[in-house]
Amino acid sequence: MHLPQFICSVIRSVPVAFAMTPPLRVESPHLPGSRMTSIPLVEGNLPIRRLEISDHKKGFVELLGQLTVCPQLTESEFQVQFAEVAKLGESHCICVIEDPNTERIIATGSVFIEKKFIRGGSKVGHIEDVVVAKTARGLCLGQRMVKHLVDHAKATGCYKVVLACAPELREFYEKCGFEDKNVQMSVYF
Amino acid sequence: MHLPQFICSVIRSVPVAFAMTPPLRVESPHLPGSRMTSIPLVEGNLPIRRLEISDHKKGFVELLGQLTVCPQLTESEFQVQFAEVAKLGESHCICVIEDPNTERIIATGSVFIEKKFIRGGSKVGHIEDVVVAKTARGLCLGQRMVKHLVDHAKATGCYKVVLACAPELREFYEKCGFEDKNVQMSVYF
Repeated sequence: MHLPQFICSVIRSVPVAFAMTPPLRVESPHLPGSRMTSIPLVEGNLPIRRLEISDHKKGFVELLGQLTVCPQLTESEFQVQFAEVAKLGESHCICVIEDPNTERIIATGSVFIEKKFIRGGSKVGHIEDVVVAKTARGLCLGQRMVKHLVDHAKATGCYKVVLACAPELREFYEKCGFEDKNVQMSVYF
Repeated sequence: MHLPQFICSVIRSVPVAFAMTPPLRVESPHLPGSRMTSIPLVEGNLPIRRLEISDHKKGFVELLGQLTVCPQLTESEFQVQFAEVAKLGESHCICVIEDPNTERIIATGSVFIEKKFIRGGSKVGHIEDVVVAKTARGLCLGQRMVKHLVDHAKATGCYKVVLACAPELREFYEKCGFEDKNVQMSVYF
């Protein structure tokens, strides 16, 4: 992988559960010898945008596979799920960062907005599925992504934003401004 | 309050942050001397149903005030919020238990269903805002409500259901089948 590896305090704590390098696309525009013209990836120069339907071909699902169990979806399955999420508009915001050199998705995170009857009919943002590709760590992409999601929650009128993480990621999220508040409990079916 | 107080293992752990007795309705059907005909509240005899718009008048918002900051909503504000949640159908299920004697809401809990791209396009249920009226504790209503919400999440195809709670409620949720998994972190605006 040809991404420069910048030192960043986040490097040890980006929330990636296990690593899998996204496969190179057959139609990669980066032929041997063309790398001199690629845009260097540095902190802050990569835009964060909403998930697009074309991101299925850009390795979005494979990237999630670095976080948890995530079998590939067919184009049709992806479109169905994309449409379901898109229906919710600003209430379910999935964001990505794309490497312009490889046209691969190298970071993602989401926030969905829960409408409440408490606090005068307020809202809570729930951050989920934050992951940075193993090959793109050290660029503070995780921290930027989390900040972006927090800002989205704030802009939509949330009184707080929450997330659940493994205890070893507590330090990373503290750097993002989060405080350890409660325990998360779960039932698996 | 005339509800019988049955002994129940949940009594110490129902997730109520602080206590406030719902005010009696002016139009209460329970005139002095009529209480002999009231239906005794026992574990299992009170149906769990979806939130209805008329529950504004039945103390739903006041009950949430036993859990957290929850100023009263006007009828119009309640209707707006109700319509927002209703749009989501099975994806945001707010349930209540009503005391048939007083026609007051004495327990509530909600689960909303997040659609995921992980695990083959699966779903996660998020349980929120579980509270039992101080006056109705000891009837296992909290445990029944949580089970109902878990069953709803399972029926809608979730691969897991999660919730966040204060550490002192861990034992209660373990009795409901939950396991301590992660930490919850938050940012307040």
